[in-house]
Amino acid sequence: MEMALDLAKRGLYSTQPNPRVGAVVVQEGIVVGRGAHLFAGEAHAEVLALAEAGAASRAATVYVTLEPCSHQGRTGPCADALMAAGVKRVVVAVQDPNPLVSGQGIARLRAAGIEVELGCCEAESRALNPGFFMRMEGGRPWIRLKQAVSLDAGVALGNGQSQWLTGTLARADVQKERASASAILVGIGTVLADNPRLAPRLDIPLRRCPVKVILDTRLRTPADAALFASPGAVWIFHGPDQPEAAKNALQAAGADLFAVPLDGERLDCPAVMRILAEKQMNEVLVEAGPGLASTLFAAGLVDEWLLYMAPMLLGQGALPAMQVGPFQQLTEAPRWRSLRVESLGNDLKWTLGPQEF
Amino acid sequence: MEMALDLAKRGLYSTQPNPRVGAVVVQEGIVVGRGAHLFAGEAHAEVLALAEAGAASRAATVYVTLEPCSHQGRTGPCADALMAAGVKRVVVAVQDPNPLVSGQGIARLRAAGIEVELGCCEAESRALNPGFFMRMEGGRPWIRLKQAVSLDAGVALGNGQSQWLTGTLARADVQKERASASAILVGIGTVLADNPRLAPRLDIPLRRCPVKVILDTRLRTPADAALFASPGAVWIFHGPDQPEAAKNALQAAGADLFAVPLDGERLDCPAVMRILAEKQMNEVLVEAGPGLASTLFAAGLVDEWLLYMAPMLLGQGALPAMQVGPFQQLTEAPRWRSLRVESLGNDLKWTLGPQEF
Repeated sequence: MEMALDLAKRGLYSTQPNPRVGAVVVQEGIVVGRGAHLFAGEAHAEVLALAEAGAASRAATVYVTLEPCSHQGRTGPCADALMAAGVKRVVVAVQDPNPLVSGQGIARLRAAGIEVELGCCEAESRALNPGFFMRMEGGRPWIRLKQAVSLDAGVALGNGQSQWLTGTLARADVQKERASASAILVGIGTVLADNPRLAPRLDIPLRRCPVKVILDTRLRTPADAALFASPGAVWIFHGPDQPEAAKNALQAAGADLFAVPLDGERLDCPAVMRILAEKQMNEVLVEAGPGLASTLFAAGLVDEWLLYMAPMLLGQGALPAMQVGPFQQLTEAPRWRSLRVESLGNDLKWTLGPQEF
Repeated sequence: MEMALDLAKRGLYSTQPNPRVGAVVVQEGIVVGRGAHLFAGEAHAEVLALAEAGAASRAATVYVTLEPCSHQGRTGPCADALMAAGVKRVVVAVQDPNPLVSGQGIARLRAAGIEVELGCCEAESRALNPGFFMRMEGGRPWIRLKQAVSLDAGVALGNGQSQWLTGTLARADVQKERASASAILVGIGTVLADNPRLAPRLDIPLRRCPVKVILDTRLRTPADAALFASPGAVWIFHGPDQPEAAKNALQAAGADLFAVPLDGERLDCPAVMRILAEKQMNEVLVEAGPGLASTLFAAGLVDEWLLYMAPMLLGQGALPAMQVGPFQQLTEAPRWRSLRVESLGNDLKWTLGPQEF
């Protein structure tokens, strides 16, 4: 199963909207077939592993990181392929949360007399596909909030200067986070201030580009913004009753527009996320300033907070990563759970999650 | 030599004012003797290793993490012991910076026909004894600034509340830093605010207690402060022209007093550090609030900044770990070098050093 999980990681950048899945066929203790799902519409992991194993699939054990599908999608059902290959036993890390599959793939295998074992490395398999599970189970994407900060959690000087706090290794890591995301989301403030391309810059070409999502209540995105020239679709979420001229200009520039209700001054973030889930976005990387970051946290819409922290002080007057306080009691101060920390050159990447209650 | 370095670490908490030193005797590829210097006035590492090796020392190779001493201190010269044991070859990690030894131990061995190799694992050996080298070469102790901070580098809420930001593992680590320090230094503000014991709390008894150093310009330390009741000497540094009555009261409470000049409003920190080096303090752990921290940094008197960082935000109005800014340009913002990062439960310990130019 560990090998199957490693195989699944090959799809890190490309399986969207599908989950990352790996499969291994074992015949008498010997690995005879390996497969990884790489691209939606192309072969599933089980099918590739069975193909590599060939005749050696008969009476073999198959390890697969997600329940084999039972429905006819763009490819045939994997449960049927396993049955046709005559395998004896299937070890499944986790049941597919997709209501089209959920338990039916396993039932189908069992009905055909195949032994099925469920739950081996379940946590590891879920961790490979947090967005797919969140979308199926929670109706929204998995949301990563990325911020580059000083060690006093400033994102910029008071005058807005912020390039660069972190070094090349940290910035290269951000490109990988971008590339693995289904969508990259920013507020209009970032578009107007930095005119970003919002496309991952990697040494390897990407077969799939993340969608660029802009929260732009009053449709202020310039039709000649750099993000229109970079690869990947542009989706602009805006508030109600915006002028048709602005809509037409942005559609002509290539954007898809989505009207969502307001929650006070800002777009209703839960509504945005529901739409992104309906549009099959598994994992959303939010590159936010203080305002959007605070709003998402308050709405419980941050599953991971990726802090790229540079060992420098921005000091008095800096823009904070998140606006909170002042507090009278330490118990009022928001706390997070430390998930991971790694050194990236002279910087840290500190990944935090919400506190568990 | 790696074994000798490991042995040297046994003296981490106790060799002050001596350096931590380890030695290994190898006869025909087999380790026949090991020694670690543990306590000033007791046997040196080489002597212990030779004693364990006994007759097997003859024609052996000895690995030692610091140049063997050549002078009669509280114990006899190790160079002579090596000569008397008839060893053939001595591998030395680094030359002793102590002017009483510096090169003379090696010269003495060579004059006796013993082969000496110098410089194996020099950096590792120096890293075991940063304070000893700094004191001998720089005339001041090695200075570690320890602060417990939130992820926005606040040390307390605006109203002073700060207990606790970090969790039990981080606080236990602080006790180890205290125990390995020659002296623990605080400002009078900390004494008045927290009335700390300033003695390490460890599960194991300590044979040597760090000196408690207070920077107290106007002798405001209460004669009944908790730090007088905990183990270890109390040294109070004060400004010129303080009233005799205050001096007498603190001396009666058990303090040693040191008058130093002022630099503006504050005690002259370089003068304090020079005195601490003269008093053989190798490593000083400074537990500082914003004012003292900023002063030490400005004076170039922080060799390591130990940030125990809790994943929480103190937000607006919090007391910053260090007072800097506002800045107009990112190039003005102070930067450090990331030396180490480790997870301690839910917190981080981030060790920073001054930038190299």
